[in-house]
Amino acid sequence: MTREELLHLVNRSLFAAIGYTDAQGRQNIRRVYCVWHKGLGRHLISTNFGSCHVQSLIRQGNACLYFSDDAAFEGLCLYGRFEIRTERFYRELLWNAGDEKYYPQGMNDPDYCVLEFLADSGRYYRFDGKGDLTDEMLNADADSRYENGYASLADAEGDSDAVP
Amino acid sequence: MTREELLHLVNRSLFAAIGYTDAQGRQNIRRVYCVWHKGLGRHLISTNFGSCHVQSLIRQGNACLYFSDDAAFEGLCLYGRFEIRTERFYRELLWNAGDEKYYPQGMNDPDYCVLEFLADSGRYYRFDGKGDLTDEMLNADADSRYENGYASLADAEGDSDAVP
Repeated sequence: MTREELLHLVNRSLFAAIGYTDAQGRQNIRRVYCVWHKGLGRHLISTNFGSCHVQSLIRQGNACLYFSDDAAFEGLCLYGRFEIRTERFYRELLWNAGDEKYYPQGMNDPDYCVLEFLADSGRYYRFDGKGDLTDEMLNADADSRYENGYASLADAEGDSDAVP
Repeated sequence: MTREELLHLVNRSLFAAIGYTDAQGRQNIRRVYCVWHKGLGRHLISTNFGSCHVQSLIRQGNACLYFSDDAAFEGLCLYGRFEIRTERFYRELLWNAGDEKYYPQGMNDPDYCVLEFLADSGRYYRFDGKGDLTDEMLNADADSRYENGYASLADAEGDSDAVP
């Protein structure tokens, strides 16, 4: 798959799956809403600081992040680590109107945090083959800004109702 | 969620995600076709013996299996272990007409094998809450037979065209 095909897979995915080791040492998966991306290598996820998966990732940040489209038989597994971001920049970027129902104290609610995933390698799967991502594919956008890929895609396709 | 609601989630899922530790010690996810179930606790997946995820699971069988329905905001993560089944019973059960294109030597092709997942615990996630599975929920069907849950569901709903 080309870098552009992989970006399209990532951008049209509303969700991704985190694969991690939990506090009991078990392999665990948590499916999360994931629409903020910087190319293929960096991704942001807003979540509850108190969640089990966040507490596990603080102890052991090595994890994977998996995007897939079952209907198209496409999958992308990224390997790397999670960092917890509590800075205002990230809080503002991912905050949505109405999030007060999850975080009553608003953007500064201590239970509101952002996970950043930093990939150092990756592998894709498609009906016609599989392969490893090159460093160039992963890092081509390292200096660009985070974008809401799902919203950008919906805008580009004139489907503004689908913007989450 | 009730056991019946969880069974419905599992039965309408064509795919599930395996969370495992790979040969490099990384957390990894592989999305697989998974329609054969025995209640909530046991699941079968046919696959290539030579695949990286199978070789990793032979070394380290502890893993998780995740079913989800993004549109309904439902997820189920099962924790347990994988066993490799090469017996004829399993080969026959999961063999589909046309599988020769993946396994040229047919049902006895050495690259054709079946993974059995045996869950010992589980956790569900839904918009209205999350919780752990009880042993009773996991083991209620331990003595029953494997069924193609997706086909049974399609039959029950009169949608035989959807049977994979």
